[in-house]
Amino acid sequence: MAQTTTLQEFEAVFPKLQEVLLEQARSYNLPQQAYDWYKKSLEFNVVGGKCNRGMSVVDSVSILLGRPLTDEEYFQAATLGWLTELLQAFFLVSDDIMDCSITRRGKPCWYRHDGVGMIAINDAFMLESAIYTLLRKYFRTHPRYVDLMELFHEVTYQTEIGQLCDLLTAPEDKVDLDNFSLDKYRFIVVYKTAYYSFYLPVALALYLLDLATPENLKQAESILIPLGEYFQVQDDYLDNFGKPEHIGKIGTDIMDNKCSWLINQALAIVTPEQRHLLEQNYGRKDPEREARVKKLYDELSLEQRYLDYEEKVVADIRAQIAQIDESKGLKKGVFEAFLAKIYKRSK
Amino acid sequence: MAQTTTLQEFEAVFPKLQEVLLEQARSYNLPQQAYDWYKKSLEFNVVGGKCNRGMSVVDSVSILLGRPLTDEEYFQAATLGWLTELLQAFFLVSDDIMDCSITRRGKPCWYRHDGVGMIAINDAFMLESAIYTLLRKYFRTHPRYVDLMELFHEVTYQTEIGQLCDLLTAPEDKVDLDNFSLDKYRFIVVYKTAYYSFYLPVALALYLLDLATPENLKQAESILIPLGEYFQVQDDYLDNFGKPEHIGKIGTDIMDNKCSWLINQALAIVTPEQRHLLEQNYGRKDPEREARVKKLYDELSLEQRYLDYEEKVVADIRAQIAQIDESKGLKKGVFEAFLAKIYKRSK
Repeated sequence: MAQTTTLQEFEAVFPKLQEVLLEQARSYNLPQQAYDWYKKSLEFNVVGGKCNRGMSVVDSVSILLGRPLTDEEYFQAATLGWLTELLQAFFLVSDDIMDCSITRRGKPCWYRHDGVGMIAINDAFMLESAIYTLLRKYFRTHPRYVDLMELFHEVTYQTEIGQLCDLLTAPEDKVDLDNFSLDKYRFIVVYKTAYYSFYLPVALALYLLDLATPENLKQAESILIPLGEYFQVQDDYLDNFGKPEHIGKIGTDIMDNKCSWLINQALAIVTPEQRHLLEQNYGRKDPEREARVKKLYDELSLEQRYLDYEEKVVADIRAQIAQIDESKGLKKGVFEAFLAKIYKRSK
Repeated sequence: MAQTTTLQEFEAVFPKLQEVLLEQARSYNLPQQAYDWYKKSLEFNVVGGKCNRGMSVVDSVSILLGRPLTDEEYFQAATLGWLTELLQAFFLVSDDIMDCSITRRGKPCWYRHDGVGMIAINDAFMLESAIYTLLRKYFRTHPRYVDLMELFHEVTYQTEIGQLCDLLTAPEDKVDLDNFSLDKYRFIVVYKTAYYSFYLPVALALYLLDLATPENLKQAESILIPLGEYFQVQDDYLDNFGKPEHIGKIGTDIMDNKCSWLINQALAIVTPEQRHLLEQNYGRKDPEREARVKKLYDELSLEQRYLDYEEKVVADIRAQIAQIDESKGLKKGVFEAFLAKIYKRSK
């Protein structure tokens, strides 16, 4: 497998992209106060994450080429990687408002900063606009420029319908377990997370190298969407069963009324009495009630249920990877790299 | 001049476009609850306005062709017109949250509907996404498809920087007249309003007919941006000096601390004592203080100042229209139609 990039290398590309965005703002004579604001929003909201999505564009390009990248190739791949990070920043800034979140990456959410508030909505829009500014600047003459724009439009829409379904299924202030179902869970996970986090980076790598035949895109999608679903199930599992010192936070899915994999598994197997217990205790901001739900999760052996699920889904994914047709330039290694980063992770 | 379209004709096109958007949602198997929500958001937020922007695409196409449109031409032009209405809906839904507005088009703002709240942010995103879905559906094979996408990206960005500057210059909760200036006023008006309301419809008409040469776009911009500025100045004038029975609302710019044309004119000519009066009374939710500002506006003869401005700017615009080079398919009539709708309007 080709060498994987580091966060340091990847982050080193951002200042140049930021400068392009600021130069654009200057070219419009944006007044100083607004210019400073935009600069601060870019710095706070785009940089500082783990950049897994962005870096996976670079790694995928390198695996597809089967060699380390030249500086020019690295810059192009990393630029597309940063566009996925900008898309994520657009979603996170606005999701935090919609979810009334308090912190993000260990700091107060952007909208909770002094004097920001609802201006964060417009800041989120500007993060989205930055995607198309950079796409135009660096890929206007690329043979797949139209496809790249359409890919971002489509993935943005997919993430939005996932978010809509999530907001309607699990409102923080109204617990209704009848509203949950494994079908809805799957819909939310696939559209809200899997497309932009897993499919998008590989599709971008394929477009960049002009390897994005319909067959290659289809094969990538058919593996990356289940992989993204598995990733989110794991996230939900770790929220309850992971060690806080590993995952870097204390899980709050039960108190937050999340439509999580665990509650959906529980609902599928509970007795009427156990369901009553869930109805009385799920989604309440009360540690004692949360403890009752956690105890029931243990009684229902949800940890073992997860481990069984994991073995089965990973075996399925491996079988699918094994069947990949590499004749049109797609490489199994792209998916093996994703799977290796995810399988049995504890954080 | 070619016949102008009616609101009824224009609105008759929307159901087909809405059906395309709903069909897209169904193709993703959007769960019923979310589907119903999206349908309601489209119906409430997109339809029901005056549709001046959307209809001006149709009228411009008809003037450029110099004849009534065939059914197919009408549908294409009206579809582009509805894209400008979708863009506006995206901005209005989110601006109302950012501005803490109460009503829009005589009804409660979308975010103030029962159970909507901050979900409106995601609804706004989906209105924006609808632009690109429809553009792809109907214009994918149009020779200017890329330019159409880029035009929407650019105008969206322009409107966002205008909105950012507006939010920072005139926060509702903090009065600071030092923050106002005619330069900032102009920046806000040009980017927040003029590009998407005036330039965009004509640029769309030019692209549709493949008449969008750089020269024609430049000429259109150089007239439509001053025209849009004049339109907004007029809006600000009517907010204070218009008759409520004409404009359909009671102006609140003074109480809302708006960076309006009138306050900027006043600031340019006040004595230190008069400035002190403005500092003590502008931007307060208090009818008595508002009355003091209104009285000062009268003492400063701002109505006459506006009327002088109007005569001068309209003469300038007419002179510019007269100089238009029609050799590449642009028509003076496009701009004459805009001006005729605006000049001396009372509502």
